[in-house]
Amino acid sequence: MRKSIATVSLSGSLTEKLTAAARAGFDGVEIFENDLLASPLSPEEIRARAADLGLTIDLYQPMRDVEALPEEEFARGLRRAERKFDVMRRLGTDTLLVCSNVSPHAVDDDGLAAEQLSRLAALAQESGMRIAYEALAWGRHVSTYDHAWRIVERAGHPALGLCLDSFHILSRGSDPAGTADIPGEKIFFLQLADAPLMAMDVLQWSRHYRCFPGQGGFDIAGLVRLVLATGYDGPLSLEIFNDVFRQAEAGSTAVDALRSLIALEESAGISPLPAPAVPTGFAFAEIAAADPLPVTSLLEGLGFRRTGRHTGKPVDLWAQGDARILVNHGTGTRGDGPFLTAIGLETPEPRSAARRAESLLAPVLPRRRVDHDVPLDAVAAPDGTELFFCSTRRPGHPDWTADFASGTDFASGPDATAGPDVTAVADFTAVADEPQELSPAGPLTGVDHVALTQPWHHFDEAVLFHRAVLGLRPHESVDLADPYGLFRSRAMTGAGGTPRLVLNLAPAPAPDPRTRTQHIALTTDDITAAARRVRAAGAELLKIPANYYEDLDARYEFAPGTLDTYRELGILYDRDEHGGEFHHCYTATVGRVFFEIVQRTGGYRGYGAANAHVRLAAQRR
Amino acid sequence: MRKSIATVSLSGSLTEKLTAAARAGFDGVEIFENDLLASPLSPEEIRARAADLGLTIDLYQPMRDVEALPEEEFARGLRRAERKFDVMRRLGTDTLLVCSNVSPHAVDDDGLAAEQLSRLAALAQESGMRIAYEALAWGRHVSTYDHAWRIVERAGHPALGLCLDSFHILSRGSDPAGTADIPGEKIFFLQLADAPLMAMDVLQWSRHYRCFPGQGGFDIAGLVRLVLATGYDGPLSLEIFNDVFRQAEAGSTAVDALRSLIALEESAGISPLPAPAVPTGFAFAEIAAADPLPVTSLLEGLGFRRTGRHTGKPVDLWAQGDARILVNHGTGTRGDGPFLTAIGLETPEPRSAARRAESLLAPVLPRRRVDHDVPLDAVAAPDGTELFFCSTRRPGHPDWTADFASGTDFASGPDATAGPDVTAVADFTAVADEPQELSPAGPLTGVDHVALTQPWHHFDEAVLFHRAVLGLRPHESVDLADPYGLFRSRAMTGAGGTPRLVLNLAPAPAPDPRTRTQHIALTTDDITAAARRVRAAGAELLKIPANYYEDLDARYEFAPGTLDTYRELGILYDRDEHGGEFHHCYTATVGRVFFEIVQRTGGYRGYGAANAHVRLAAQRR
Repeated sequence: MRKSIATVSLSGSLTEKLTAAARAGFDGVEIFENDLLASPLSPEEIRARAADLGLTIDLYQPMRDVEALPEEEFARGLRRAERKFDVMRRLGTDTLLVCSNVSPHAVDDDGLAAEQLSRLAALAQESGMRIAYEALAWGRHVSTYDHAWRIVERAGHPALGLCLDSFHILSRGSDPAGTADIPGEKIFFLQLADAPLMAMDVLQWSRHYRCFPGQGGFDIAGLVRLVLATGYDGPLSLEIFNDVFRQAEAGSTAVDALRSLIALEESAGISPLPAPAVPTGFAFAEIAAADPLPVTSLLEGLGFRRTGRHTGKPVDLWAQGDARILVNHGTGTRGDGPFLTAIGLETPEPRSAARRAESLLAPVLPRRRVDHDVPLDAVAAPDGTELFFCSTRRPGHPDWTADFASGTDFASGPDATAGPDVTAVADFTAVADEPQELSPAGPLTGVDHVALTQPWHHFDEAVLFHRAVLGLRPHESVDLADPYGLFRSRAMTGAGGTPRLVLNLAPAPAPDPRTRTQHIALTTDDITAAARRVRAAGAELLKIPANYYEDLDARYEFAPGTLDTYRELGILYDRDEHGGEFHHCYTATVGRVFFEIVQRTGGYRGYGAANAHVRLAAQRR
Repeated sequence: MRKSIATVSLSGSLTEKLTAAARAGFDGVEIFENDLLASPLSPEEIRARAADLGLTIDLYQPMRDVEALPEEEFARGLRRAERKFDVMRRLGTDTLLVCSNVSPHAVDDDGLAAEQLSRLAALAQESGMRIAYEALAWGRHVSTYDHAWRIVERAGHPALGLCLDSFHILSRGSDPAGTADIPGEKIFFLQLADAPLMAMDVLQWSRHYRCFPGQGGFDIAGLVRLVLATGYDGPLSLEIFNDVFRQAEAGSTAVDALRSLIALEESAGISPLPAPAVPTGFAFAEIAAADPLPVTSLLEGLGFRRTGRHTGKPVDLWAQGDARILVNHGTGTRGDGPFLTAIGLETPEPRSAARRAESLLAPVLPRRRVDHDVPLDAVAAPDGTELFFCSTRRPGHPDWTADFASGTDFASGPDATAGPDVTAVADFTAVADEPQELSPAGPLTGVDHVALTQPWHHFDEAVLFHRAVLGLRPHESVDLADPYGLFRSRAMTGAGGTPRLVLNLAPAPAPDPRTRTQHIALTTDDITAAARRVRAAGAELLKIPANYYEDLDARYEFAPGTLDTYRELGILYDRDEHGGEFHHCYTATVGRVFFEIVQRTGGYRGYGAANAHVRLAAQRR
């Protein structure tokens, strides 16, 4: 279907909005009147600009407080409408959105409303225009779509129809099933907006918290199915009032917006996409570090071994159990030290995953970076993290590990002197020769989760991206108290519970990019042994205050000595209501990256949110 | 009365919180448990730190979900409480806040609640402690203060009393009059929090939007009067969960907090303050500019004349009608160009105004800056703007104009060559000699309003400051749409409608300080003549799009030719529902400063908010 967006949904000048909508791939726009009024371009110039960009102008909006008024006031509205029809003719659009009256002067008289709307429609018709009447959820007398439909039906004018808006219908809890009774040709326009489910004043909710379909709690797909069943064949158009989108760069918001409609078309059964190839786990995480030593020292301390080197790039493979970290010391020119640049996701069908991602507007990355690379499908997430779709050592698929020579070659590598001394890790089994050892034994067994703090403005976009593109399932959003503001945190998981990806949002405004930390949580079956191993290797664990352990002691009963050990090592503890337990500790932070070691028992599904404030305060010291 | 603050109300580490509370002048603190748990200081060290700072620890909080539970769960709570009593003993505090149970396991049985709370109180008593039971507004079975009181009364234990919290009482719309029935000695603690009146989920409202008394919509003073009438003599304590305060610097938040309590004590009739000496108008506005030429060129273009020079500093006085602008080119080392540094407020009793300001923690500025200055009372507003209390040319008061020599001396001034040529302003009457002319005639007659964009984090503080310290009355807050986010704007006026001060809040995050614009609006009786004068003098007025005027034409009827003139000059227009009219136009912005020219007729009281989006978009171009 044709896809449109209201200019009010995007930031910037009208020109910037049109350009962003066109570049993202929208077919048309609704022109929000204030955007026109504030623009130095004439309606003719706006029309030409839109046409040059391949955009149609599908709606002019809104006209307010025009119907169900005393005659003198209505006459002024008609005069105003006449001028607007002229503007619309010059813009090259033919549909005017009229919102139900919110004025205290409005009369509670459906007959009067119908009669006046009919006269307005007749005037519109003379100019080749038509009127789409919409019930605002806070309209003075008309606030539901079925009421608006009764008035339109009663008016019975061919140039008068309805505009349906998902927010106004669903925010009031109206049953959208009644839309099935409206003839499709009388639905002139369909505006779509989602919103988080909040108990708040509907006007404030609408003006500040709307979001793109799939980012809130409404069943937009269900509504769209109903409306399409009527025969409606106009555009699916987004009209989003959102304080964050008002500030965000219009280009990325427009991509986020169009992605939401493409995903919506899939879930409403309008246009299929390549089926999701939901990741099952992490193949690797890649850290870029101009100076790799701080990271590799940490990895050594954690018990990782350098088991391979990329044949064409200065990238080392460090492994332990099923956890694999690539340390790339050929990039990392940023001043803020090591940071996580890429994640490898174990994916049953990498090609299919990439095709779906591309359909959903994910930027596709080159399959080969250097000659002879194994060709890997990869896309960029909204925060810039590169996502590689991997099928590690599965027959019939390219295998990323083939790019890595085994560890025996390290001594002759280009900067072996810069890296840590592999032989220092003497506690573990020797490096295998061919193929290089992918899962050397150690106290850590794999990756539990990866947590990425998102740039301000892109949190909801990131959640939708990972849900729609990868098929991960978002869990409840939680607030975490940092000494200098609230973090928002939302976990997303694959079908079988893995991989676990945690998206965080730093308190705004957060001008300091160092607060955009990233961490890799590693699993162990024995938190105490793992933590002791780290300490024995000379690495530090985050120091946790004694007061925390006194509180643990007040809340739970532990085996004798356990809390002393936990206090000594800085191990945190949480227990869920089903008795599931979570034991975890943290390394120091290098650049933006730190590591967590976690042990889950008894089916614990969380991430230790109850301890986050203690950890965040300790990290601030 | 003693004044306390809960550590959760301030940002930072526990040490930072204690330091900020003490420096502001608080007597005590409530220790929020999570702040203790996250602190590396032991309870003994915290006690010593607080004592060193002159702070008592008035409450330990909160203990949750302890009462009205099955016996086994209650026993675990008792065990936990015992540990907490030990922590409290080490902290040197004797009152534990217990919140009404929110757990799904809680039983709806007042008898059980009373019996278990009584047992808890008995245990507390053994340790010399007592329990303050508080009804959370979202408590599972106990959510009102009168219900909590019935349980406390039924328990009848001397170590069990109530904690009253203004938010929990007033957010639910409970009638606080019932507090009069509670014996004062059974009210163990009084927590105060205000909040903007919002229709939203009470838990979210409480956790994110609480603010200091006087910053929201609750009648906190009325509640305090009722509670004091019971004989309560404990502290007035602030417990504020607020997303902005969590991020703001703790020192300034603590001052804001204490100021709110001092103002509250005045309005509740507890402690009088020096009476407000409400300003009646603007004496001057001062702009600092390392390079004064861009500002003085604008002033010349607007018809101002340089009528005086400070006898001891490189500060020129520019005047027109009753508008006076000081241009200070001796400071202004900031890189962001000219900005407004000070406002002179016509004040009936400057000394009294200053004493009141000082009582309300306004930083007092030196009365003399250079030798022989006329001594003026001045304080700093939260955004750093200096406020001078002036009684211009009123007998018996120092007169700031005495510092300024008349304009005839200018040719010999130290940098007369750098300034504009005074003789170029040939349209207006010649400069008088002695005393220097304060109100030379011109198209502009005075200052209509001054608008200052506040630093992020200090908006509510600024509103309270100007209300409490100066006695200005805040009007409704409005949202203004900028192309890159929403501005919040709130006008404040003196008793007779003047002076008008407008506080703006730029969209967050706004790292660009240039978005913190400031403007001075000047009055005229003839907007067209004033605008033409500016243009004739070669200065530019902000260009307003033609589309805007087509819309004006659609909405209102104008005398023939008026809209053509307005379009040509960039004059904006608004009309209120009573027929009052507002005509206004804008200069270019220099540094952070621009000027507006306004003409009000028919009792128009607003500030042209309907046009703000057009003006903001034009300023962004």
